[in-house]
Amino acid sequence: MVYVGIDLGGTNIVAGVVDKDGKILGKAETPTMAERPYAEVLKDMGDVVVKAVENAGFTMDDVASVGVGAPGVADPETGDIVFANNLRWYNVPVCSTLKAQLNKPVYINNDANVAGLAEAMFGACKGAKSSITITLGTGLGGGIILNGKIWSGTHGVGAELGHIVIEKDGLQCNCGNHGCWERYSSATALIRWGRMAAVEFPSCLINAMVDGDINNITAKTVIDAAKAKDFVAIDVFNKFISYLADGIVTLINSIDPEVIAIGGGVSKAGEFLLEPLRKLVAEKVMFKDLPYARIELAEMGNDAGIVGAAMLGVIA
Amino acid sequence: MVYVGIDLGGTNIVAGVVDKDGKILGKAETPTMAERPYAEVLKDMGDVVVKAVENAGFTMDDVASVGVGAPGVADPETGDIVFANNLRWYNVPVCSTLKAQLNKPVYINNDANVAGLAEAMFGACKGAKSSITITLGTGLGGGIILNGKIWSGTHGVGAELGHIVIEKDGLQCNCGNHGCWERYSSATALIRWGRMAAVEFPSCLINAMVDGDINNITAKTVIDAAKAKDFVAIDVFNKFISYLADGIVTLINSIDPEVIAIGGGVSKAGEFLLEPLRKLVAEKVMFKDLPYARIELAEMGNDAGIVGAAMLGVIA
Repeated sequence: MVYVGIDLGGTNIVAGVVDKDGKILGKAETPTMAERPYAEVLKDMGDVVVKAVENAGFTMDDVASVGVGAPGVADPETGDIVFANNLRWYNVPVCSTLKAQLNKPVYINNDANVAGLAEAMFGACKGAKSSITITLGTGLGGGIILNGKIWSGTHGVGAELGHIVIEKDGLQCNCGNHGCWERYSSATALIRWGRMAAVEFPSCLINAMVDGDINNITAKTVIDAAKAKDFVAIDVFNKFISYLADGIVTLINSIDPEVIAIGGGVSKAGEFLLEPLRKLVAEKVMFKDLPYARIELAEMGNDAGIVGAAMLGVIA
Repeated sequence: MVYVGIDLGGTNIVAGVVDKDGKILGKAETPTMAERPYAEVLKDMGDVVVKAVENAGFTMDDVASVGVGAPGVADPETGDIVFANNLRWYNVPVCSTLKAQLNKPVYINNDANVAGLAEAMFGACKGAKSSITITLGTGLGGGIILNGKIWSGTHGVGAELGHIVIEKDGLQCNCGNHGCWERYSSATALIRWGRMAAVEFPSCLINAMVDGDINNITAKTVIDAAKAKDFVAIDVFNKFISYLADGIVTLINSIDPEVIAIGGGVSKAGEFLLEPLRKLVAEKVMFKDLPYARIELAEMGNDAGIVGAAMLGVIA
């Protein structure tokens, strides 16, 4: 039997056929066109499942279950997307609709949560009973796995790790609060600080690398300039790491997982990020002489969402 | 059958005999004298259990199990106190020693965790599968209950909610880090701010209430002055509530429990604390239109430690 995972994004719907070892055997995709009535999007989600199964060389009889990674708050009990900002969806009955179309068990969870599940089952957190995966991209996404199960809270509004408060009365966040972690520990933050530094210190390497066009500064620009030992870029990167460390310390001192995996664009910095991060966390954590979470790079990359969604049927 | 709970503190050892409904049937206590060799303290812990059982009118044959609430990091698996700062204990074999003396099953967990368990089973969080109890005293203690079990993390170093970072590079904390929540949301913080306000605004009611002797300012002084509508005291109390709210928002956006119970000395302010706190949390939480944790006053008071410790044997 195989398992199908759907990564439902604001731009594309991607479905993948996954075996029980987390290997992707075939894929299909279609544009989301989220402005349409949701029933049309759901219909396309079903169709893209069927197409992915064909592409993988299977029939629907081989499919044990379908899982959906949702860009927002999903209720695993009712199978609904409760709220998805990108799609402007409220209380959309995803699982029941797909089940009616496909005649398979359908499961749903938040996309960051299923990415965390994929890391826990096959990636950086493999073998750990409890782990947290944070994804440093446009925002900061979090997936919490406790005792092998996704923990998204009692009301499904948890694991929004980008919105733990790290700086009281700090920068305004889209969520309405101030000082949320993702305002300081996302690719967006690193880019913002890189641009500010390029404006303040025009002779810095960051500015030179984009020929003075600060709009072309990416997270990689800052990281590469820091690797090249540019003082300004090193300052920016150290500031980024310091905020990241304090958020990780918050997770260790509260949830204390076995492993914390770091994914997303910024994690491509690899050991250049991890080594100073681990050093700083060691200095800041509450119990310095006791064991605490390993900090590792996420391993599943862009496939985490599909693989984790597919695995919802395995752990159900 | 009855259950014995031991509240092991830096000053006193208190044992209580508890029935399965959380009712305390008898108690005994003895000074800890923590500077002694730990074997002597453990011997007294056993003796105080026997004494409490006598005082309650039972014999040891009626005792199903003994539980210990430890002031530090305890390992429920090995039964050891791994580290207790107050007692200067490292790797002390509490459960095995007591078991040898009393010939009963002995369980152990951190004192804030067992207080959370007591609230979850019989207090403010009764009926909730998942809850968090925070105790606002000298420090800020946390007990996390998930699916009816204590969650103290993979390595037992979690649930140290006083040490989530709420203000990046903020006030120095005893733990070595900066900006920990308990530096802003404990009775100690409220007293500190009250004293600072009395120095800065000598004509304020806080100062008048202690006849200018700021060392006599307590959390109650500030709260009473705020209730009496003194502007300075209201400012101090609002600042306190604002920090408390941001920490609670962090807990909701990450762990999302069903109930958050607030105990400790400051919680005696009752609705005067709770009403503005709930209002502020409602403004700051990530998903404003979705259900999230109820915020309630803890109900178990000083008995929470004994009752929760006793219940370790019930949930084991």
